[in-house]
Amino acid sequence: MSLLVVGSVALDSIHTPFGEVDDAVGGSAVYFSVAASLLAPVQVVGVVGSDYPMAELDRLSGRRIDWSGVERAEGESFRWRGKYSFDLQSRETLETRLGVFAQFRPKLPAAFGAAQYLFLGNIDPELQLGVLDQVRSARLVACDTMNFWIEGKRPALLELLKRVDILMVNDSEARELAQDWNIHRAGRWILQHGPRRVVIKQGEFGALLIEPERTFYVPAFPMEEVFDPTGAGDSFAGGFMGYLARTGSTTSDNLRRAMVYGATMGSFAVSHFGIRGFDPVTLEDVERRVRAFRDLTHIEAAEPLT
Amino acid sequence: MSLLVVGSVALDSIHTPFGEVDDAVGGSAVYFSVAASLLAPVQVVGVVGSDYPMAELDRLSGRRIDWSGVERAEGESFRWRGKYSFDLQSRETLETRLGVFAQFRPKLPAAFGAAQYLFLGNIDPELQLGVLDQVRSARLVACDTMNFWIEGKRPALLELLKRVDILMVNDSEARELAQDWNIHRAGRWILQHGPRRVVIKQGEFGALLIEPERTFYVPAFPMEEVFDPTGAGDSFAGGFMGYLARTGSTTSDNLRRAMVYGATMGSFAVSHFGIRGFDPVTLEDVERRVRAFRDLTHIEAAEPLT
Repeated sequence: MSLLVVGSVALDSIHTPFGEVDDAVGGSAVYFSVAASLLAPVQVVGVVGSDYPMAELDRLSGRRIDWSGVERAEGESFRWRGKYSFDLQSRETLETRLGVFAQFRPKLPAAFGAAQYLFLGNIDPELQLGVLDQVRSARLVACDTMNFWIEGKRPALLELLKRVDILMVNDSEARELAQDWNIHRAGRWILQHGPRRVVIKQGEFGALLIEPERTFYVPAFPMEEVFDPTGAGDSFAGGFMGYLARTGSTTSDNLRRAMVYGATMGSFAVSHFGIRGFDPVTLEDVERRVRAFRDLTHIEAAEPLT
Repeated sequence: MSLLVVGSVALDSIHTPFGEVDDAVGGSAVYFSVAASLLAPVQVVGVVGSDYPMAELDRLSGRRIDWSGVERAEGESFRWRGKYSFDLQSRETLETRLGVFAQFRPKLPAAFGAAQYLFLGNIDPELQLGVLDQVRSARLVACDTMNFWIEGKRPALLELLKRVDILMVNDSEARELAQDWNIHRAGRWILQHGPRRVVIKQGEFGALLIEPERTFYVPAFPMEEVFDPTGAGDSFAGGFMGYLARTGSTTSDNLRRAMVYGATMGSFAVSHFGIRGFDPVTLEDVERRVRAFRDLTHIEAAEPLT
């Protein structure tokens, strides 16, 4: 089933203890698409400047990514520069240059309006609402957001929440949105404000799927070498939505499996700089890691004690 | 099978955002025993001062806890006073008075020397080695430690590690011991220095069981109300060891189940001040929560994608 993502297409400059890259292809929509396309075709809506290395995106098209919704505007592309701490636990933004992204008004190609699975990446909630209006009959809508919008555009964000099925955010964002430090109460609050499900990402500690009657937990994959955490959360979203689009089911059991595919994609993302962690990955690799995830929390049944 | 714990028997004064208690019965050996005794009888070795409310311990004896190895010395009991932050994420030690604990030299009653499951709580590694010498034929030995000993008694601690089966520590302790910020590499380092298994506790993020060929992850139980995190790690240890002692098996599969019993006991510990969270708990309650833990990470099988 068709999967559509709207988000940033950027050039990232990343400093980690293991090296650095400049102007690497990145942005939430790119990580999302590269991850999701291992599972299902993806349509992308975004904007780049006249300086963007389109050949890099074209190189990725073999992965069943349709870039025709990425507008090419006069001016500079969105650039982000960040530096990670020695243990990759925190990062500092050194520079953000919005460029053409500042004027981004998502316009969907007519064909994209039929998308059945829609992911609204982290942009102004008013623009996210505008995208929703252009999609005719989505089966499932998920959205991301960030502290900047939670603080500055709360009414629009609350309006958006009423119209999405799943909110997918970091733990700090969930806490700030719900104004509650307890992550499970925060999840409950979010469920009371629109979405039927909330996914809370906790970085190296995995992610939670909170539903009205059940909670699911997927850990992060145990990795002795992590090179670059950039894009892990967007790759998680791509794996999650890609699995749903491929399997066409939104039952609780299938959402749980989608969480594992999300965590799997997150683990590939952090294994190299930028999107390069996905370069060698095949569907067989994905399935192998999904099996490893299953073993990571597998509990062999035993006689109960009572 | 017989289970023995050596550790602190203390009086805790605890300040949380929800209230405070003074001189409550606590200490690592107490939390451990109360949790473990729900699953198996426990023998305790420790020391208290002449001011200790022995009636409080006696009250707990109905739980199959043998306190006869707790020496009563002239002087003050070990007292700890701590204050938690508003979100319970961090705590500050306001006061530590070792009292008679400073002179603690564990002497096991003769009958205790036959213990088959031994937990060496967080005390001076030289004393932990001394306890090991008094136990004749343990089937499984696990130990805890802390940053104070990692920094101040490293040679004795490394000597101890060669003689234990399982090291059970917090993530910060594992990192400091291995001098590596990556928790999985730190676990690997520990496995190369003696123990066949390492359990790494991560507080609200659950716990890892790292074995040479497999890693297991158990999350913390999702709780919308947490009152007092004191003793959660010791209760985890008690549930873990109590399950092993009850079932008499140390296979990888049984260790995984023991992790779930550990996490279950941790969740009871934090539900009230001090050890009071265990007051109403029956074995049926334990089994019910263990089942809830299973559901928390359960992934229903589906057709593989390849």
